[in-house]
Amino acid sequence: MAQTVTPPRGMRDFLPAEKARREHALGVIRGVYASHGFDEIETPVVEDSSRLHAGLGGDNEKLAFAVMKRGLTPADLEAAAASGDALALADLGLRYDLTVPLARFYATHRAALPPVFRSIQIAPVWRAERPQKGRYRQFVQCDIDIIGDGSNLAELELLTATLATLDALGLAGCTIRINDRRILQGVLASWGVDPSLRDRALITIDKLDKIGVSGVAAELVEIGVVDAARATEIETALEGLASAHWNLHDGVVKPPAWLDLDAYADLLALRAALPDAAIEFDPTLVRGMGYYTGTIFEIAHPDFGYSLGGGGRYDGMIGRFLGQQVPACGFSIGFERIVDLLEIRDADRPRAVVLVHDADVPAGTLLALKRELVASGSRVRLERRVKNLKNLLDRVTADGFDAFAQVTAETTDASGLTFRDLQA
Amino acid sequence: MAQTVTPPRGMRDFLPAEKARREHALGVIRGVYASHGFDEIETPVVEDSSRLHAGLGGDNEKLAFAVMKRGLTPADLEAAAASGDALALADLGLRYDLTVPLARFYATHRAALPPVFRSIQIAPVWRAERPQKGRYRQFVQCDIDIIGDGSNLAELELLTATLATLDALGLAGCTIRINDRRILQGVLASWGVDPSLRDRALITIDKLDKIGVSGVAAELVEIGVVDAARATEIETALEGLASAHWNLHDGVVKPPAWLDLDAYADLLALRAALPDAAIEFDPTLVRGMGYYTGTIFEIAHPDFGYSLGGGGRYDGMIGRFLGQQVPACGFSIGFERIVDLLEIRDADRPRAVVLVHDADVPAGTLLALKRELVASGSRVRLERRVKNLKNLLDRVTADGFDAFAQVTAETTDASGLTFRDLQA
Repeated sequence: MAQTVTPPRGMRDFLPAEKARREHALGVIRGVYASHGFDEIETPVVEDSSRLHAGLGGDNEKLAFAVMKRGLTPADLEAAAASGDALALADLGLRYDLTVPLARFYATHRAALPPVFRSIQIAPVWRAERPQKGRYRQFVQCDIDIIGDGSNLAELELLTATLATLDALGLAGCTIRINDRRILQGVLASWGVDPSLRDRALITIDKLDKIGVSGVAAELVEIGVVDAARATEIETALEGLASAHWNLHDGVVKPPAWLDLDAYADLLALRAALPDAAIEFDPTLVRGMGYYTGTIFEIAHPDFGYSLGGGGRYDGMIGRFLGQQVPACGFSIGFERIVDLLEIRDADRPRAVVLVHDADVPAGTLLALKRELVASGSRVRLERRVKNLKNLLDRVTADGFDAFAQVTAETTDASGLTFRDLQA
Repeated sequence: MAQTVTPPRGMRDFLPAEKARREHALGVIRGVYASHGFDEIETPVVEDSSRLHAGLGGDNEKLAFAVMKRGLTPADLEAAAASGDALALADLGLRYDLTVPLARFYATHRAALPPVFRSIQIAPVWRAERPQKGRYRQFVQCDIDIIGDGSNLAELELLTATLATLDALGLAGCTIRINDRRILQGVLASWGVDPSLRDRALITIDKLDKIGVSGVAAELVEIGVVDAARATEIETALEGLASAHWNLHDGVVKPPAWLDLDAYADLLALRAALPDAAIEFDPTLVRGMGYYTGTIFEIAHPDFGYSLGGGGRYDGMIGRFLGQQVPACGFSIGFERIVDLLEIRDADRPRAVVLVHDADVPAGTLLALKRELVASGSRVRLERRVKNLKNLLDRVTADGFDAFAQVTAETTDASGLTFRDLQA
């Protein structure tokens, strides 16, 4: 009996045209990153449950899909029922990002890796979010990370490689917004926010794009980070942050009290080393993850209200699995957000031809023709003739084929074929 | 505190050299299959639990990793404890093969696909097998399938594309063993095996490589498929099957009683259409899966005791999700088995160079040098100079780099660099 058949909720199938577009874009990203000295690695899609829930994933930990232990006994089920702890029945989980697996990978294989390890990870992650437009439960992340370099050369190599990739993808006009977590700490200190409340305050400031300065000030009051009497003062301060530029420290303007001068000098050095790149200082930039310790960055594009990727320095995290501090810095391209913006140029793929054959053409002839055309560099599809040839040709044209030829029982080799263009 | 850190049990990380080898091989496979008119698709790694356990996966269904429902309540846990049914807590599962997802995909998207749909799927699958050498809980399958073609052109296109792929991978000397499920049915009918026992009998015959004719005959007796008195007769029959060749039906030799003549004629036609291919008739070839209905094939190589891939016709399966019969035929390459056999030729990758730089070289200079070399087609890694330069050079040589140059504070552009070969 026929059923309604769909992929699992919030997940997608990719049909040939979309799959080709995705693989093309991934190939471009891989190629540029590799040229810039990054090395691709791969980890299993699942990690041990205890590692996924070690507090490094922030809110994403709650969104992890849990994989059940095999061979659960009635006693296991009864124990879970008694404790109410469903996660006790799981030993693995689907990864919700590529950063936790990278930290685990580095701890496992450090001895086999160079002192400064530049990794590429291009792979799916899973989050059990409520499905909505543009948000999926399985999606691809493209991460580059540099582990073992505490100098700003790491940030510079990440920025250079990412900008080169966006360029190779044809995404002109991108800007990098940049900030430093130390600057955000300085801002909160200047407001007198207690250190214990600062992580929570950053979550609110991160909503500036959505709820504006008055919304952020109101929420900071509501959650008890600042007194209600200071709401207007905080609004003004936020407006000042949002309009800040690179001129805060040039000897003409007196640096504002909230500015961490060391961190700002580091950002100026990044900008100076990349004179051609469009890099904007934005002291309101937060990035969601709690593990960032220094520089943070985000890709903005004038045509889109959302970021196309981002990253930052997270010097404390690798040490959690390794028992030893190791500096690290990463940049992630929001693949699902950019893939729809790309066009595949015809020049990037081989000539694709269709052989429309009568039913009485011997299989051996068809195979020999196909082999001959494949050997000459074409992609070849066989299609049996149907009554309405126009329908067939419209369909293969939509599938991206360039030309077709008709094969009859009299055809003996490819020199007897007449190709007609389809795409014209 | 440092912990012992490993990937999940039975699963693997891939370090850069191994990942590069795998991606290279997958690129070759993708390219040849695409040339032969196959189109790549992708499905989510999970499918609905009910679909994975619909009886189409054979023994693999028992090996599926189950994904727990989100938001399980105490009542859910108590109900599972009461029934003892752990699977009631799961709504999804990791796919154990690519065939069940393909059948689901085809049922979902049939209207958007060509009447004869040639798919490529290159993707990981998961099975909770007991970890052992060469057997992993996450591994990659490379499947091509043709859906909607009941003629033997489907088998021929699959065989041609697979042989071309093995050739492109440099795996010379492969043979295709071929059989037809109808021939196996004929054999069992000639032995008087009841139709209800035949699937079980095939599982035993499938062990011929491992336990030999006497082992198979003994097991057939043991499970009640044949009487003990006939064990010797069955052994002789099995020996006859194992030594059968293409001469069973050539007008000289009288066809044996067990031979399904229609099926055998179909196999002869396949062989005739592919005169250059090494195709061996093997009436003892079973292939494990219960869903095969006609032709079955397997790739053998003289150097290996196991098959490098296989497939067959499964006309009944797609209909299970669609409520309508659709012919289908597929071929799967055992990727994990062949990837270790391959060598990546140096000519297949760009020149890779290392810039060894002093600590006092400005970051802007390093980035400019890197950009210049990347633009000229090289892959570039920066390495900070260490006291023992030889160690550093040995390491990057092992990482596959071709040449290095030293950068000092006096270097201004790439024309000032002197490259020395590493691999010589």
